[in-house]
Amino acid sequence: MKTMGLSRLYLVAPQCEIDGQARALSSSAWDLLNEAKICSTLEQALSGTVLAAGMTARRREYSAPARWAREAAGTLVDHAHAGEVALVFGNETAGLTNDELALCRLPVTIPANPAYSSLNLAAAVQVMCYELRMAAVDPGLAASLPEEPAAFEDVQRFYSHLEECLVASGFLDPGNPKRLMPRLRRLFDRAGLGKEEVNILRGALNSFRKPGRS
Amino acid sequence: MKTMGLSRLYLVAPQCEIDGQARALSSSAWDLLNEAKICSTLEQALSGTVLAAGMTARRREYSAPARWAREAAGTLVDHAHAGEVALVFGNETAGLTNDELALCRLPVTIPANPAYSSLNLAAAVQVMCYELRMAAVDPGLAASLPEEPAAFEDVQRFYSHLEECLVASGFLDPGNPKRLMPRLRRLFDRAGLGKEEVNILRGALNSFRKPGRS
Repeated sequence: MKTMGLSRLYLVAPQCEIDGQARALSSSAWDLLNEAKICSTLEQALSGTVLAAGMTARRREYSAPARWAREAAGTLVDHAHAGEVALVFGNETAGLTNDELALCRLPVTIPANPAYSSLNLAAAVQVMCYELRMAAVDPGLAASLPEEPAAFEDVQRFYSHLEECLVASGFLDPGNPKRLMPRLRRLFDRAGLGKEEVNILRGALNSFRKPGRS
Repeated sequence: MKTMGLSRLYLVAPQCEIDGQARALSSSAWDLLNEAKICSTLEQALSGTVLAAGMTARRREYSAPARWAREAAGTLVDHAHAGEVALVFGNETAGLTNDELALCRLPVTIPANPAYSSLNLAAAVQVMCYELRMAAVDPGLAASLPEEPAAFEDVQRFYSHLEECLVASGFLDPGNPKRLMPRLRRLFDRAGLGKEEVNILRGALNSFRKPGRS
């Protein structure tokens, strides 16, 4: 990540401390390792970000379809003008869990040989950081943002609010939720909610909770 | 290289044999290693190629100025229609010598952080092979729809339904609608609604119109 100009490393619930061996392996990037932030949960690490990209090598049934690394890099660089963005990688053996990926609004995949598609973690990090640098250097394909993007925690609160209203209205049965919330999240994640849009949607939900005029 | 669909590995004057340790490290790419060709000189390895790209992290005084990986990948793929092309990497510690690079018609560099510009050999191989794959598959078609897209008229009916519910709940004042519906339409248009998603959203709206349980 340092070769591509990135500097802020967050480790979520690491299995060991940053010890002498880790420092030795980090070579001349020990400064990044020294300043790495340790978080106990992914939610904590993503707090305050406006866009999180979760890397996945395989198709997940209920997540949004993954974007290719190149397209996602443009989106990330574009959002970086508005706030913090994050790249989220799972561990070497299993990658991100479905729950972890669900916290990332932008699922991203590196197009690979279908017969041998899983890159090493370090390789995936290198490719994605490279694409970010290329997108930053040559922002030709960056999509335009509609407005100020909503912060991670605001989007999560909207989802909780929506779920609560759907349970109250009887549309969502908590005892048999099926895949309703994941599908709705996928839809809104695809759009990429703006800050003001979240306010509008939550206002609309509140209006539905009132007795109404119908 | 196998993750990116490349299969032919040439080793020039390797310092050791392809032994059990090498096979173990190659993991599921042992087939490429088994079929690797051993050459005594770089000239021999490049014999018969129509274009060789030599990777370099630093500016060489007497070579042609290096092309960026992305541009070079396009050039390589173009030439591959006419004959064999090669990617040439030096060893981990020193990279290619000037003499070796001089045998490569296309010097190539991976744009990197000027303060820390030298990628590991494996990382450089991964990035360059990735660029080749991207150039070969012709990107830009990456966006995929999650499901059967909703028909135009179904989307319009959803918008009418949404508007009707927002008026009924009192959130939207028909006498002073402001930009509420255009903003919501823009949000859903950005996501690109699927047929089933429209059904879910309309079902949710209907549930809000009922007296509810809250």
